[in-house]
Amino acid sequence: MRGGKGREAQVPELRKDSILDRWVIISTDRAKRPSDYAKEPVVIKGGSSCPFCTGNESKTPPEITALRPDGSRPDTPGWAVRVVPNKFPALQPDGNAERTGDGLFVRVDGVGAHEVIIESPDHQASLAQLPEKRIEDVLTVFRDRMVDLKNDPRFKYVLIFKNYGLDAGASLEHSHTQLIALPLVPKQVREELDAARDYHRRHQRCVFCDIIRQEKQTQARVVSEDEHFLTVAPYAPRFPFETWILPKQHGAFFEDTAAGTYLHLARALKQLLLRADQLLDRPPYNFFLHTSAMREETELYYHWHIEYMPKLTRMAGFEWGTGFYINATPPEESARALRELELRAAPAPANPGS
Amino acid sequence: MRGGKGREAQVPELRKDSILDRWVIISTDRAKRPSDYAKEPVVIKGGSSCPFCTGNESKTPPEITALRPDGSRPDTPGWAVRVVPNKFPALQPDGNAERTGDGLFVRVDGVGAHEVIIESPDHQASLAQLPEKRIEDVLTVFRDRMVDLKNDPRFKYVLIFKNYGLDAGASLEHSHTQLIALPLVPKQVREELDAARDYHRRHQRCVFCDIIRQEKQTQARVVSEDEHFLTVAPYAPRFPFETWILPKQHGAFFEDTAAGTYLHLARALKQLLLRADQLLDRPPYNFFLHTSAMREETELYYHWHIEYMPKLTRMAGFEWGTGFYINATPPEESARALRELELRAAPAPANPGS
Repeated sequence: MRGGKGREAQVPELRKDSILDRWVIISTDRAKRPSDYAKEPVVIKGGSSCPFCTGNESKTPPEITALRPDGSRPDTPGWAVRVVPNKFPALQPDGNAERTGDGLFVRVDGVGAHEVIIESPDHQASLAQLPEKRIEDVLTVFRDRMVDLKNDPRFKYVLIFKNYGLDAGASLEHSHTQLIALPLVPKQVREELDAARDYHRRHQRCVFCDIIRQEKQTQARVVSEDEHFLTVAPYAPRFPFETWILPKQHGAFFEDTAAGTYLHLARALKQLLLRADQLLDRPPYNFFLHTSAMREETELYYHWHIEYMPKLTRMAGFEWGTGFYINATPPEESARALRELELRAAPAPANPGS
Repeated sequence: MRGGKGREAQVPELRKDSILDRWVIISTDRAKRPSDYAKEPVVIKGGSSCPFCTGNESKTPPEITALRPDGSRPDTPGWAVRVVPNKFPALQPDGNAERTGDGLFVRVDGVGAHEVIIESPDHQASLAQLPEKRIEDVLTVFRDRMVDLKNDPRFKYVLIFKNYGLDAGASLEHSHTQLIALPLVPKQVREELDAARDYHRRHQRCVFCDIIRQEKQTQARVVSEDEHFLTVAPYAPRFPFETWILPKQHGAFFEDTAAGTYLHLARALKQLLLRADQLLDRPPYNFFLHTSAMREETELYYHWHIEYMPKLTRMAGFEWGTGFYINATPPEESARALRELELRAAPAPANPGS
């Protein structure tokens, strides 16, 4: 295996993503370890005016849904997870999503939903620090919102994504995830769906299942594994320490997963976030959930998953101009570092209870 | 025309790029003007140890070529533009660029060239501040390097790109451009070539020429225009204030352009950079040059051009997960602001002479 031995002088590699036609330059010439990245740990400053804090429910638009273990009324304290419309939505609920043209140019009304999932009433708690049961609650809310939005025939896709830290695009520091429902299937997802469909036609197998099989065999890029999930650095990661969480049980739709699965996913996600937080000094990060396009017959070939990427580097002219990425940390290195890390005892959860 | 009137409450739009299948959300709900972006102007600190400064020629690998008006010897002072190999190359010149596989995974030796074009001996001078004749020199050096690298049959594409300012990915502040020669045609370019070819098949016309025609007609997104170049905000810009420079004379290959063109391009580029510097407070930025893939029969349908993008925002989870972009400044707004700006008298060039 090339590219797995750290600082030895080696020929750089161009690697193709195992699903998409997306190439990455693994520039092994100066393979970078965690300590080689300039780190800017996310610091939570706090502040009483945060609209996501408990007690400030009136500062957000009226809630869409919430987990309220104490049976309290909407838009009052007492919730564990709360979903509200984004106050500055990228898309808006009204309109018909028809395409119109103007000569060469094509546009669609920006119809969609843009929601915020507030993961905890506690301003200080990061997702990684929440108890597993609380993370399970958050994941279950993701599912519930997807199931609900599926009823609107104008929406073709729901993306759930998280920006953590200013450098990763978060404008509010109180831990939250976002959801955008779109009137068309985004390019990246369409390419993944198409590639997975083509692979299935050729091999009569799911490409993600094959990746899981091969990664388990070589172990070179495995971060962790349990009965239900494989956490693994992809073969051609765009970013240093990019890591995916793949369910071992094949399934195209996140929202159709067996109910018990969400607790296992919560465990895998928490493990990954804690490891990355410790190894990379609480980095800003993004993750997103890729699930199937709505109402498409993808069950045989698509396989939902999570892609996590800490924000350690900047995109620059080369990436914009090519669609390629340059990554100075081979995934074999990043996986090994995350795998071999000895996790310090977790800090006491900011919001005790499970 | 929607989206062109600033802060009025409007439905956001999804716009398709006029060439690629790339969509952008123009979130007009809170249309952002230049003053709405948190700006971090690029500041040149200086320092005697800069390897790109005149007098420090020994700190770079031996030069590949240089413009030396005074006839001085290689790797000594006296140059106006100097090209050196990148000291930490993403790709390396040795190898045969053959594809190899490992089960699901495909890789190619990272064969390529990675060069730095040092635009001026003066540490303080930005590209925008150089006299037009000096910028012409730089552009002519781009051409010369392309012509030279075309002789190596292993290379399929040469991308020239610029990162200006730390936030745009520049690791050295002395003004420079980079060049990477690749053993395969990058995804972004391939998609652009394919889309332009398909358009030509359907319409027997170049899509870029049609864009120029339509943009000249409506004028809504035009920043400036002269006999040779149209500077225009694209219909679906990924980034606020993204601006393209299109040659009016059709041509697929930058390096085959009539010699006199480079001075006109220098003028258009300088104008754009000066305007953006003044309007956006000397922002970090990227630009890249899209020219045809080497040795492909693209002359009828491809059209080289420059894409400029100031770095005012951050990519986040939504963009990574979808391949879509959210842009809060409609291109009609950004073009108008750049167009209507009254340019202050240019500062005295840091390195006088033309």
